[in-house]
Amino acid sequence: DLLQRTEHYLSAKPLQGQHWVVTAGPTVEAIDPVRYLANRSSGKMGYAIAEMAAKAGAKVTLVSGPVSLDVPFGVNCFKVESAEAMLKQVQDALDNDSVFVSCAAVADYKPKTMATEKMKKSGSEGLTIELSQNPDILRWAAQETNAFCVGFAAETQNVSDYAKSKMERKGITMICANDVSRDDIGFSCDHNELLVFIREHDTTKEQRIGPASKIKVAEQLIELIHQVRPS
Amino acid sequence: DLLQRTEHYLSAKPLQGQHWVVTAGPTVEAIDPVRYLANRSSGKMGYAIAEMAAKAGAKVTLVSGPVSLDVPFGVNCFKVESAEAMLKQVQDALDNDSVFVSCAAVADYKPKTMATEKMKKSGSEGLTIELSQNPDILRWAAQETNAFCVGFAAETQNVSDYAKSKMERKGITMICANDVSRDDIGFSCDHNELLVFIREHDTTKEQRIGPASKIKVAEQLIELIHQVRPS
Repeated sequence: DLLQRTEHYLSAKPLQGQHWVVTAGPTVEAIDPVRYLANRSSGKMGYAIAEMAAKAGAKVTLVSGPVSLDVPFGVNCFKVESAEAMLKQVQDALDNDSVFVSCAAVADYKPKTMATEKMKKSGSEGLTIELSQNPDILRWAAQETNAFCVGFAAETQNVSDYAKSKMERKGITMICANDVSRDDIGFSCDHNELLVFIREHDTTKEQRIGPASKIKVAEQLIELIHQVRPS
Repeated sequence: DLLQRTEHYLSAKPLQGQHWVVTAGPTVEAIDPVRYLANRSSGKMGYAIAEMAAKAGAKVTLVSGPVSLDVPFGVNCFKVESAEAMLKQVQDALDNDSVFVSCAAVADYKPKTMATEKMKKSGSEGLTIELSQNPDILRWAAQETNAFCVGFAAETQNVSDYAKSKMERKGITMICANDVSRDDIGFSCDHNELLVFIREHDTTKEQRIGPASKIKVAEQLIELIHQVRPS
């Protein structure tokens, strides 16, 4: 079966000599020293991909937002907070022949200004926070390097439409969509189900992975990336 | 010495028959299903207080925001996300003869509206988030119940002035200030140092606890609360 085939596949170290760069977890954008803006992400999917890619023989660089997970064995991990810091580490790590798996839930927006001291609440009024766009790490990698880039799209509705349009917008040929409105997969869960879209010339192929444990999903995704990636 | 004295003190179960309600961790205010606003807090100080109060014989209710800590032995824990949900659990838990230790980093503000579907980024423009004030859990407890209320103030500057004015504003007689601008204590650390202010009639006493492990600080704070609390 597929499970046994995949285990056999990984133990043959097919990724030997390759460099995989994986981002995982949320980014955290400081409003002041106490308050912040963030995205939901446990980091489990990205950490599973990093772990399994290392088991398959790749040199793996994991760039991780704040999560409470142990760094997998054999993986080189850089911890960051903001999207800007994540971009910087990815820029340092990516080579032109790397595989880049952008699994982190990067905040699209950050506060325009970060207060250096804790803001004080005054009166009973509301407050307005002005946000500006964060750098787009995946688009940067797709446009400025020759790395093979794989995106993730966490959506709550029209999952496949949004994922396909994100693939176009970022200029990538492979994206993994998951429906985070479901309780049984996605955020904080140990299980996941991905719908993977792969663009080849004018057509887009679609392949479902899971539902299965995030470790199993990671194994099968790694095998799929290895098949699809132009060599 | 103080350490041995405190250990002896706790093992005598001085809080037998008392009900302590402790809040801990951050609150998380959803902007949409993926994005949120939060405060920094590991929950370690509040969990240590809950653990030590239970060891000292109290019935302990812990109302905790999202943290990755194990619930201490013998503690009844309710997990919540938002300040509104935390208020509700505290309202359910607090009796008039309870001790209330408000250690959570409750978000002062929440988004005015929560989008039910993930917001889509459009163009390259910024974004504005309108915030409104959250309910004030500590002030509610101080004004609407006869529980003995202890506050916390995490500050980055003018620590003692802000803490004393927070004590007045909330209508409480005991507050623990810590300076979260320091790297060696506070957020995510296992150590802490508190400056505790206690109002008695027209004077305010000041007592320093620590620097020490959060567990040791919790023990000494519990003994201090037990001394100060009118019986």
